[in-house]
Amino acid sequence: MKLATLRAGKDTTAAVLVSDDTAYLALPYPDVGTMVADPQWRRTADSVVSGQRSANGVSASAAELTALLPAAGKVICCGLNYSEHIQEMGRELPEYPTLFAKYADTLTGARDTIDVVGSERVDWEAELAVVVGSPLYRADEEQALQAIAGYTVANDVSMRDWQNRTLQWFQGKAFDATTPVGPVMITPDEVEGDFEVRGYVNGELVQAGNTGTLVFGPAKLLSYISQFTVLRPGDLILTGTPGGVGMGMKPPRFLQDGDLLTTEIAGIGRLENRIRLHHNDGRATYSAPVTSTATN
Amino acid sequence: MKLATLRAGKDTTAAVLVSDDTAYLALPYPDVGTMVADPQWRRTADSVVSGQRSANGVSASAAELTALLPAAGKVICCGLNYSEHIQEMGRELPEYPTLFAKYADTLTGARDTIDVVGSERVDWEAELAVVVGSPLYRADEEQALQAIAGYTVANDVSMRDWQNRTLQWFQGKAFDATTPVGPVMITPDEVEGDFEVRGYVNGELVQAGNTGTLVFGPAKLLSYISQFTVLRPGDLILTGTPGGVGMGMKPPRFLQDGDLLTTEIAGIGRLENRIRLHHNDGRATYSAPVTSTATN
Repeated sequence: MKLATLRAGKDTTAAVLVSDDTAYLALPYPDVGTMVADPQWRRTADSVVSGQRSANGVSASAAELTALLPAAGKVICCGLNYSEHIQEMGRELPEYPTLFAKYADTLTGARDTIDVVGSERVDWEAELAVVVGSPLYRADEEQALQAIAGYTVANDVSMRDWQNRTLQWFQGKAFDATTPVGPVMITPDEVEGDFEVRGYVNGELVQAGNTGTLVFGPAKLLSYISQFTVLRPGDLILTGTPGGVGMGMKPPRFLQDGDLLTTEIAGIGRLENRIRLHHNDGRATYSAPVTSTATN
Repeated sequence: MKLATLRAGKDTTAAVLVSDDTAYLALPYPDVGTMVADPQWRRTADSVVSGQRSANGVSASAAELTALLPAAGKVICCGLNYSEHIQEMGRELPEYPTLFAKYADTLTGARDTIDVVGSERVDWEAELAVVVGSPLYRADEEQALQAIAGYTVANDVSMRDWQNRTLQWFQGKAFDATTPVGPVMITPDEVEGDFEVRGYVNGELVQAGNTGTLVFGPAKLLSYISQFTVLRPGDLILTGTPGGVGMGMKPPRFLQDGDLLTTEIAGIGRLENRIRLHHNDGRATYSAPVTSTATN
C-alpha cells in the first residue's frame, strides 16, 4: 500500500494510492502520521480501497502533495552511513551511528518549492527514510523491524555554511520547510530487497547508493535510537546519504536559484523540488502568529 | 509572577505561586507551555490571584512538580556560551552559537529522580533556560526580547560516553527524562539584572557562572535561532553552562548512583534531582504503547 498526505482546501488528508498508482482515495485521517498512530489504520484503508468508487478519487497527477508527516514528534537523522562512500573516503566504518535531530517544521512536500533565506551553500542529501508505526523503547532489532510502518524518500537539504559555523550540524539542517519527504510511504509488505537511492540536479545524476550498503540499516537504527528515547508512530528516521554531495565535489558545487532537485527511490517514488534562494537582507520579518506546524 | 506545572492526579495543571512563595493556585491550563500559548494568560492568572482563597491553594512544599513544559515543540540548546569559561580554556569567543536539539521527552520535573540506563559517564550542566511566549520568525533582538515569556532553571544532564561516540552530541543529550526544568518560570517583569547559575553535587558547589558573561544572551539566541526556524509559545531555549562540568575535571568526575544533583538560580529556584544509574543488561524491554509525551 502507498499512502500520502494531500492538501484538501485549508486542511490535509491522508490518502491511499489505487488503480495502478493513478488515483488517490482520501482516508479519514488528517495525515499519514496521525493515520499510523491508529492501530486499526490498515483495516480502515482496506475498507476504503475495497469500497472505492472512482468518484471519490483524485487523479495522482492532480493531487497536491504536502509534507507526509506534518506533525512528526521526532525527525532523527543518521550521517555517515553508506559503507561504500565511507570506504572510498578512506575512513573506517563507524562503531556507532552519527545522529542529529530536526523538527517537523523542517519538513516539506514532495513537489514544494524550497525557499532558502540567507544561505549560499545549499547542498543535497538524497535519503531513504523510515516511518515509525508502533511505540519503541529499548527495542531489539526484530522488534524495531516489526515497528516500521513504511518507507519513504527524503532529501536532507543542508545549508553547509550554517552547518559548518560550529561543530554541531543542527543549525544547517533545520531550516524550516527545506527537507522534502514523500511522495508516498510504502508499506513493508510491498518492499522487496534493498532500495536504490538517487539524487539529480536539473536532471543530472549526482548521487546513487544502495541501502544494502548501509552500515546501520533501518532496524538497527530504530533499535539503537530507542535505547535512549522513545519512538512513536509518525516519527521519521532518515538513514543517511550516499556519496555525491555537492560539498564533496572538486570544486564544491551548491544549488543555485531555480535549480530542480530530484530525489528518487525506485518502487517508492520521486521528489521534485524547485530551489529558490533568497538573500537575507537583515531586515527582521516578524510574521504574525504562526499557528500551524507550518510547512509552507 | 512565578508559574509551575504540577501533577494533579493523572493530569497536570499550570499553577501560580502566591503568598510569599508558600502556595500554588491552579490555573485553567494543563501546563505552563499551553498557558503561554494563550495571549490572555496573564489576565487569567491575575484574576485567579486576585480572587484567591486559601482553600484553593496547595502548599508549595506539598506540590508535586512535573516537567514545566511537557509538550514543548522545540528544545534548543546552546553550547560554549560563557565567555569566562571559554577564555579560561584558552579559546577564542565564538562568532556563532553552537546549537543542538532535544525533544520534550528529554525533560523532567524539578524534583524527579533521573534514571539513566546504559551510561557510565553522566555529567551535569547547570543552565538558565528561556521560555518562548510569542511566535518568532526572522526576528531582531528587540522583538526576541519582547517574546520571552519567562526564565527557568535547567540542567542539561549529559551522557558523555554517548555524546562522544560520534561528532554529533545529540545522542548523549537526548536520553528521555534526564533534563530537569523548573521549579518555576519567572516572568521578565520580576527579573532584575543578570542571573547567578550554580550547580551542586551532594551539596558541594561544582559550577557557578553569571549570565552577564554569556556570549549570546537570551535575546541574541532567540533572534539567531529564529532566522532559520520558527519559535512558538512553549518552546524552550537552554543558554549553555558555565565552567565546572565533571568532564573537565582532572581526573574527570561523573555522577554516581544515588548522587543528589542541585541546580540553582537565585530569584528563580532550585532543582533537586536524585541520580539513579541502571546497568543496560542488553535485554530489550519493549514497553506497551507509550501514549503520553512521557516524562516519567
